[in-house]
Amino acid sequence: MAAERDFSKGSRLYESLSQLVGEEDLFTEPEDLIPYGFDGTAALRHKATCVVSPRTTEAVSGIMKLASAEGIPIVTRGSGTGLSGGSIPVDGGIVLCLVQMDQILEVDPANLTILAEPGVITKAIDDAAHPHGLFYPPDPGSMKISTIGGNVANNSGGLRGLKYGVTRDYVMGMEVVLPSGEIAWLGSKCVKDVAGYSMKDMFIGSEGTLGIITKVLLKLVPRPKARRTLLASFDSMEDAARTVSHIIERQIIPCTLEFLDKKTCGCVEDYAKVGLPTEAAAIVLMETDGPESVVNDEADAMALIAEENGAISVEKAKDDAHAVRLASARRTAFSALARIRPTTILEDVTVPRSHLVEIVSFVEEVAAKYDLDIATFGHFGDGNVHPTILTDETNKEEMERVEHALSDIFDKTIELGGTITGEHGVGLAKKPFLPRQLIDASYQLLRQVKGAIDPQGLLNPGKIFDQAEKS
Amino acid sequence: MAAERDFSKGSRLYESLSQLVGEEDLFTEPEDLIPYGFDGTAALRHKATCVVSPRTTEAVSGIMKLASAEGIPIVTRGSGTGLSGGSIPVDGGIVLCLVQMDQILEVDPANLTILAEPGVITKAIDDAAHPHGLFYPPDPGSMKISTIGGNVANNSGGLRGLKYGVTRDYVMGMEVVLPSGEIAWLGSKCVKDVAGYSMKDMFIGSEGTLGIITKVLLKLVPRPKARRTLLASFDSMEDAARTVSHIIERQIIPCTLEFLDKKTCGCVEDYAKVGLPTEAAAIVLMETDGPESVVNDEADAMALIAEENGAISVEKAKDDAHAVRLASARRTAFSALARIRPTTILEDVTVPRSHLVEIVSFVEEVAAKYDLDIATFGHFGDGNVHPTILTDETNKEEMERVEHALSDIFDKTIELGGTITGEHGVGLAKKPFLPRQLIDASYQLLRQVKGAIDPQGLLNPGKIFDQAEKS
Repeated sequence: MAAERDFSKGSRLYESLSQLVGEEDLFTEPEDLIPYGFDGTAALRHKATCVVSPRTTEAVSGIMKLASAEGIPIVTRGSGTGLSGGSIPVDGGIVLCLVQMDQILEVDPANLTILAEPGVITKAIDDAAHPHGLFYPPDPGSMKISTIGGNVANNSGGLRGLKYGVTRDYVMGMEVVLPSGEIAWLGSKCVKDVAGYSMKDMFIGSEGTLGIITKVLLKLVPRPKARRTLLASFDSMEDAARTVSHIIERQIIPCTLEFLDKKTCGCVEDYAKVGLPTEAAAIVLMETDGPESVVNDEADAMALIAEENGAISVEKAKDDAHAVRLASARRTAFSALARIRPTTILEDVTVPRSHLVEIVSFVEEVAAKYDLDIATFGHFGDGNVHPTILTDETNKEEMERVEHALSDIFDKTIELGGTITGEHGVGLAKKPFLPRQLIDASYQLLRQVKGAIDPQGLLNPGKIFDQAEKS
Repeated sequence: MAAERDFSKGSRLYESLSQLVGEEDLFTEPEDLIPYGFDGTAALRHKATCVVSPRTTEAVSGIMKLASAEGIPIVTRGSGTGLSGGSIPVDGGIVLCLVQMDQILEVDPANLTILAEPGVITKAIDDAAHPHGLFYPPDPGSMKISTIGGNVANNSGGLRGLKYGVTRDYVMGMEVVLPSGEIAWLGSKCVKDVAGYSMKDMFIGSEGTLGIITKVLLKLVPRPKARRTLLASFDSMEDAARTVSHIIERQIIPCTLEFLDKKTCGCVEDYAKVGLPTEAAAIVLMETDGPESVVNDEADAMALIAEENGAISVEKAKDDAHAVRLASARRTAFSALARIRPTTILEDVTVPRSHLVEIVSFVEEVAAKYDLDIATFGHFGDGNVHPTILTDETNKEEMERVEHALSDIFDKTIELGGTITGEHGVGLAKKPFLPRQLIDASYQLLRQVKGAIDPQGLLNPGKIFDQAEKS
């Protein structure tokens, strides 16, 4: 049985793997394996039995060839900041940790690209672009610790989705190791390329189930020259929503349009002492970036629109330090909430922007119905909300109510034309709910593609959907 | 044999099809079939034997179910403006023409989206967005006659690629009829959606080989408030290229950066009398759009950069009419060239922008080597060049030289890290060259996906790659 596969020192598999990566990058002792048994997802963990941390594409290819010959599952991971259990180990499998492939290989200002290994930290991509006056916009909450390979594998979002899009919009190409161990290059440095199906787009967001990303080629854009930050507070979520609609109708596309509900606001103020008006029903953080003259005009216009729509207060950042303080209200939301109860379940349902108030109100109703503590914050501009359930995973009865609440929230989201996951991925956590969203023939397409590219089902098995039964 | 399939009036298949679409939308008489035997591609044609022009998704589904049951190939087409032979009929197949599904179903300004049937003309999408202050940027050369379904199936480009991207960047979702006849919805109105593999991205640019697109949901952006147009002429392509590099280094991303070489310039001037300096080695059309204050600054900066880099002349458009006249220099390039010789072969190789001068010079060398008439124009900003071979398809000896020239150009493009097709697709015309570009395991991935989604090989067989042999 798979679960009994022997990776211990001296075993045949240990010897084969240590020839590929060297003993210093091979871990099979229980105490070394502990950190690989979980990721950022609450209430999901599973013991790893073998971890390898290769340093080259050739080593990854060798490991994959061995896995293919022996039928060993491979779970690829970076820093393990995922929020859907996508990198939880499977029985008898190898955890392939890519954090040691962490080199930026090229910054090409003439073509506005950067080439990096998958283990590079997301923020380091933007840091490398900065001296060239360039900008890598995707900014997932975990950008200071997440890896770019993980971002690509999950098509990570962030706070700038409305104006700048998500990780997918910046991936021009990638090197992948396929389930056979063969190395393939997908995409190119060309801004336009229609030579065959866009396989890179299939691998972006595939959560490690189709191949192992060993290099990523990313697009950069000119760094905006200026930025203005505002924080507006409102008596009601409806006023906040109307403000956002009017901003967009006025043809202003801010880079950030984030909101916190009253509960989140209170927790953030307790934790970070930003000076938030804790009596407000909703707080909206607005940022515009671009040329100096434009951002000033846009910031003034946004402040006026907020006031016209009943804002209790509008605070404009006077300088960079002030802007960072205002933005920290949103950046610290998750940490602030995570202090309240032992277990924090962060969801990421997304609806068309025009339905945002509806889903936020519905979450409040659900919290009352199941007597749960749910705070909500998120991305007003792109309809991506984070209902955050503050609970305790050791309390079985409460966890049952949590399950019911989530189920109701997912159903409502789908009814509103939304998606059960806007930026965290399906992984294990959302797997049972995916067929509710993809009720038509599209669900079957996912399995068809998986079956064609990974016929042995070795790559991250059981994530996104259950393995098809072998005949 | 497939080729002998009987679609004539009174036949069993004729009766089945006429029940699905009605006799008025079913064509099997030779004189009715002529226009469906070719598309915009030179020297490629094949007789159609049966054309259906359904008006609903249900009819498309019915036709696909019939085709699936009977093993009949389906070649989907719109206006037939393709430039790679992607919609050339196949023996014994049905041509499915979607121009009658031509309704715009919804414009949603709150969510910045438009929902349309596939037969809507590309330009009509932008025209429908305009009254709402919105903008659909992709502008393929054929936008006044091409259909949006064809654009999505080919991931069409256009003149605004550098700043605005291509069709893919605006497709949020689509309804497709799968080879089984089942109807599936891919994507959503959500700006962020990571629920499973991005199947919509697989279907974008799949050239009718995976499914039949029956609805498209597109993203719109705010319409830029102002635009400035400039035309600069240069003594050498190198000076022009340096100008483009310096513009981008100065953090200016114009919406258009188009060039014409000397030969194209001369033909355009003969044809359209724009007042171009025909002695110039290169002419560059530059357009910037955005807020009024920004475009003025950017236009001034671009003019200065051109002068610093040795421009012979820089003409700034004084008003809209003047701007349209300058832009027409580029918009009429293909028509102007097509008048010179009986056959015009328009290629679309694309290289990383920094290699653009190299590929243009190489095309000149190739023209001399094979004694051919080749004019080049294209998109300086995104590295997409259009070497245009002016020839005569009835001259077998010359056509052989054309084949050699193309082969050399494709090889050089690939050597420079480019692609054999930036915006026209593979179809029939580029099929033999695709394996030269995708030399690694990535070529096999295309066939694996095709085999999984269309196991009978019914959809547009023989396009992109040859059908795999049936075992």
